[in-house]
Amino acid sequence: MYPISEIGGLGLADKGLKLTVEDVFNADQTCLVDGICKVNGCTGSFVSPRGLIITNHHCAYRAIQSSSSTGKDYLRDGFQAKSLGDEIPAQGYTVRITESFRDVSDNVLSAITPGMSYTERTKAIEQRQKVLEKNAEKEHEGQRAEVAEMFAGRTYVLFLYTYIQDVRLVFAPPASVGNFGGETDNWEWPRHTGDFSFMRAYVAPDGSTAEYSKDNVPYQPKRFIQVEPKGVDEGDYVMLIGYPGRTARHKTASFLDYEQRVRLPYVVDLYQWQIEQMQQAGEKDRAVALKHSSRMKSLANVEKRSRGQLKGLVQKEIVATRAAAESKLQAFIDSDANRREKYGTLLEEIDEVYAEMEAKQFELDIQNLRSASRLMYFAFTIYDSAVERQKADVERETPYMDRNIDLTRRRLMLAVEDYHAPTDRNILEGMLTRVRSAGDKTKKIVAQLPPEDSLADYYAKTSLGDPGFVQSCFDKTPQQLEALEDPALSTIIRLYPKYLELREQSKSREGKLDQLYGDLVTVKQEYLKQKFVPDANATLRLTFGHVKGYSPEDAVYKSPITTLGGAVAKATGVEPFVMPQTIIDKHTQRDFGQFMHPKLNDVPTAILYDTDTTGGNSGSPILNGDGRLVGVNFDRAFEATINDFAWNESYSRSIGVDIRYALWLTGNVFGANHLLSEMGVE
Amino acid sequence: MYPISEIGGLGLADKGLKLTVEDVFNADQTCLVDGICKVNGCTGSFVSPRGLIITNHHCAYRAIQSSSSTGKDYLRDGFQAKSLGDEIPAQGYTVRITESFRDVSDNVLSAITPGMSYTERTKAIEQRQKVLEKNAEKEHEGQRAEVAEMFAGRTYVLFLYTYIQDVRLVFAPPASVGNFGGETDNWEWPRHTGDFSFMRAYVAPDGSTAEYSKDNVPYQPKRFIQVEPKGVDEGDYVMLIGYPGRTARHKTASFLDYEQRVRLPYVVDLYQWQIEQMQQAGEKDRAVALKHSSRMKSLANVEKRSRGQLKGLVQKEIVATRAAAESKLQAFIDSDANRREKYGTLLEEIDEVYAEMEAKQFELDIQNLRSASRLMYFAFTIYDSAVERQKADVERETPYMDRNIDLTRRRLMLAVEDYHAPTDRNILEGMLTRVRSAGDKTKKIVAQLPPEDSLADYYAKTSLGDPGFVQSCFDKTPQQLEALEDPALSTIIRLYPKYLELREQSKSREGKLDQLYGDLVTVKQEYLKQKFVPDANATLRLTFGHVKGYSPEDAVYKSPITTLGGAVAKATGVEPFVMPQTIIDKHTQRDFGQFMHPKLNDVPTAILYDTDTTGGNSGSPILNGDGRLVGVNFDRAFEATINDFAWNESYSRSIGVDIRYALWLTGNVFGANHLLSEMGVE
Repeated sequence: MYPISEIGGLGLADKGLKLTVEDVFNADQTCLVDGICKVNGCTGSFVSPRGLIITNHHCAYRAIQSSSSTGKDYLRDGFQAKSLGDEIPAQGYTVRITESFRDVSDNVLSAITPGMSYTERTKAIEQRQKVLEKNAEKEHEGQRAEVAEMFAGRTYVLFLYTYIQDVRLVFAPPASVGNFGGETDNWEWPRHTGDFSFMRAYVAPDGSTAEYSKDNVPYQPKRFIQVEPKGVDEGDYVMLIGYPGRTARHKTASFLDYEQRVRLPYVVDLYQWQIEQMQQAGEKDRAVALKHSSRMKSLANVEKRSRGQLKGLVQKEIVATRAAAESKLQAFIDSDANRREKYGTLLEEIDEVYAEMEAKQFELDIQNLRSASRLMYFAFTIYDSAVERQKADVERETPYMDRNIDLTRRRLMLAVEDYHAPTDRNILEGMLTRVRSAGDKTKKIVAQLPPEDSLADYYAKTSLGDPGFVQSCFDKTPQQLEALEDPALSTIIRLYPKYLELREQSKSREGKLDQLYGDLVTVKQEYLKQKFVPDANATLRLTFGHVKGYSPEDAVYKSPITTLGGAVAKATGVEPFVMPQTIIDKHTQRDFGQFMHPKLNDVPTAILYDTDTTGGNSGSPILNGDGRLVGVNFDRAFEATINDFAWNESYSRSIGVDIRYALWLTGNVFGANHLLSEMGVE
Repeated sequence: MYPISEIGGLGLADKGLKLTVEDVFNADQTCLVDGICKVNGCTGSFVSPRGLIITNHHCAYRAIQSSSSTGKDYLRDGFQAKSLGDEIPAQGYTVRITESFRDVSDNVLSAITPGMSYTERTKAIEQRQKVLEKNAEKEHEGQRAEVAEMFAGRTYVLFLYTYIQDVRLVFAPPASVGNFGGETDNWEWPRHTGDFSFMRAYVAPDGSTAEYSKDNVPYQPKRFIQVEPKGVDEGDYVMLIGYPGRTARHKTASFLDYEQRVRLPYVVDLYQWQIEQMQQAGEKDRAVALKHSSRMKSLANVEKRSRGQLKGLVQKEIVATRAAAESKLQAFIDSDANRREKYGTLLEEIDEVYAEMEAKQFELDIQNLRSASRLMYFAFTIYDSAVERQKADVERETPYMDRNIDLTRRRLMLAVEDYHAPTDRNILEGMLTRVRSAGDKTKKIVAQLPPEDSLADYYAKTSLGDPGFVQSCFDKTPQQLEALEDPALSTIIRLYPKYLELREQSKSREGKLDQLYGDLVTVKQEYLKQKFVPDANATLRLTFGHVKGYSPEDAVYKSPITTLGGAVAKATGVEPFVMPQTIIDKHTQRDFGQFMHPKLNDVPTAILYDTDTTGGNSGSPILNGDGRLVGVNFDRAFEATINDFAWNESYSRSIGVDIRYALWLTGNVFGANHLLSEMGVE
């Protein structure tokens, strides 16, 4: 996942790129990269001059869900706007376009003064970033500035973005297509999921970004990506550009060991249980199921990824491999007195941070208490916001700064709409039991929590499930919130000092790790005599590779293109393998239009390639050597969940929906031929 | 699965057989087939002139289990006899060698006279078979005769067998090798199970068959099979000879539909539950786990096979396909007035039998009551035996005839040894609930059963868990058994009229189906103008094919030879993927001796081939074109569980342990080089 600025040094022409690297990325002129945007946590591509965006079904999922009700169930039935006027505002969605970026490492690091504590260090860096962002936004009106840490404690880049706030849903296939295979197939290859949808970016008539208004007009991107209805074939060059979230390739064996033994098993256990609660609650009531669907999907996604990572960590012996590399590095450090003086205890000090985190494992329960229970999450966000908003803007926690507070509140309101008290009560009850299970270590916390047998009354009395009430809390001071005597708010107010303590502790750890990891990169580069690619951090990255199968285990080979025939064979009619009858019929009739793969003699559904991706690459365009769109990235193979810790040529594979399947579904199956025309496909 | 007598018509020379067909099978001279035997329900091969047999680990499992105790745990640690004297008698095991066979259809069918009821018809055929068997045994002293039904109601063949009763355990790898992958990998490819073991047949010094005696000597087979340490490669010709159990390829769509909707789901549900009971009981006590291990393994095997069959029936639309074929047959029947007169209602009448079975689905619970609960099984076998033994020999149910009674009792005694009262009580309690759940339909039966709350007392009072007591019951009359007032015996005595009624009903159905299926074969042959291969019936069959991979689903290809490296990669150290450290070390050291596959550069572990097999083919020799042993068959791929209903070239694949792996383990790993020498491998 190369920072886009490094594209010149990758030798892409030899790999299969037919464009010049300047066609792809050029800081001074319009280029391919201008056609790519961030859609909330995902990536999207502009595919028409009128702001039409293609991204994943699972990226638009929240928008489809919140437009749905039991009466008009767009999740189940799919959605199609017949004209611009029919497009539905996607609440809580923003589209971000990278305008420019520059290195600000020196400026950021100059905020650190000798003798600072780790916590002070973290806060100083945070504040300096905020100041840089505010200044840059003053300079570039209408744009948004964000400083990204590239190498912890070492390099920082300031990005300028256009943020579009009026985003609308244009087209989504039914979940039986867009989520075909559901959690069973998630993180698996072979795959047959039609995981794509269309959205559209809107701006004010004068071209400036603006909140939703019916007077807004489609955004005209500087550049759009041309879709390639001929698709790709096995062995072809592909590249992905997008906003990959987080990787941990430069972290230590002790971090990986903590992940393997502590955090990942914890996440798997906690999320499985939460999903089960929501599942049971939704079984008899479609309205309740709809409320939970988006959150369940996201928890299930992380749960299965975590299982894959656990499996990979064990099977590929990642911890041992990294520990062996660190032994060599330690020997290199120890071989020179100066180096030993400077870096001798570096690895040991990093290890101590994770050892401390392991010793305080019970804190995971305390932290998750206020996310697993939505009620606790509402109360915490409201109260934390009130406290923080009393501070000067740059001193606040990021979500509560003036530039972010609206988004924070919008997201909270969306969550309030999905609140279902009986489910939440079960989950809170379970979390209380978990917190209590640490015995003496959490005794003081437990004393602040409601007793399990009081929960019926507790949920009857709280008003935090009421959107109007939550809204009314936004302008209140901490004192006013205390006076409300809402039981959920009161719990959080009692726990607040503990959460502040945890926040400080986390900043202290972060400060320590930032400094130590900064040093680690320095000495590692000295040792290996090479530059590294920084870990993914949600900034614009490029990755390239080829359409390619793999062997996940002895005697098994998986080829890189699936077919509609394979999808139909999977369609047992039992969830998650239900498929619309129209598709089955069109397959029987071989009504493939221009979208048939000439050798496979069928519509290709999904493709597999050996690029390097992680979460956040969802929705990334899969581009061929001519920079044309041949698919939309949406997942990784099970073995590649371990990508986040270590990439490997033999099994790291990503998965995309084949553009031919997306176009065939949009036009031939669901009749939205006007969208094909808009994209220039006839 | 061709009857061995048909070998001449199969064109095997073109397929890859280098021997003449007479080398393989020849009724008048010694041939390859003479080296093959039946080992209880499995197949085995003589691989030395001294009666050494190679078969599966899972075929010897019962013998390994019953020789084991917590002190000498041969299941866990494996077993190796250093010399003949160390070989352990395999209680309850027999080895059967086919000596000759002849068609007796006319004789059997002449027992039927016009006007017989279906029940009378079945009984008449059974009796005639028994008479033929007794007469043949009188003629051929020391041999055993068995009449096999080839096509129900049409063709019968009398087989003469030598039955060896002294069978001993020679060598078994540890379960971590012989059952590597356990139930997770069972019915799956790729596979890495070392599922083989060695036994030996013994006879009296004069060469006659005899029960175990320390004076017995190794049996000298007429012919033994030469092992081929070079193994096979992808694409090579292979053939299997063995005793496949039962298939249902000539049965109707209504039968398959009954299997799909009623019986298979019932079996899956019932067996899963039984396994769970035994699993829980064995968790904390290895001695209890050992008692249950053999039965659990066999239930789990059927349970997973049934799941595979259910999946295959649905996915491959087997019922619909067969129904479509029957519609055409019906049209053929109806197209001719004579044919319609004779066969017009044939299919309808068959369907009625299955419809009736479905209507009486609750009888499955009543039948399973006396197998799921071992106590009920003991009581039933004891009482049924006493009742039957009062009849003339040929009128008895087969297991109680003089020629069979010893074996029946030996098997019962083995089961008594594995009895564990607390588990059995849980299972009986569950069965009582199941029987009760049919409401009015089982009200009368329920009245005869012990109330659930009396079971503590019931199990305390019964003596049927005591081997001595069970032994003492053998010579008692029904009246004497009644007088014992053992609670378990009393329950069975009260239920006995119901079980007799069910037995009569089953004979009536069988009689009806025999006649109808006989007619069905006649008219089908008339329609299709071809001869059929009869369904498997545990008689000697030959099947041939090639070492060949397959594609179980879109974009997945499985190649046909697995490697030791693949086994080691699977060995996580967590059951069922624990592997002895010696093997892992030898793999690391590449200590492969002569057993390395030249292209795979590793020891091959298992092979896959497209022959036609079913249960009973376990342990069958995999022979190359020269008639040499290149592996031992032990399983089928998951998709091939459906073989029992329909064979298909594209996914019917069987699985064998590669002889190279077996020899490498026996010699290089476990040091039993004397066995390699005995087999002529140096």
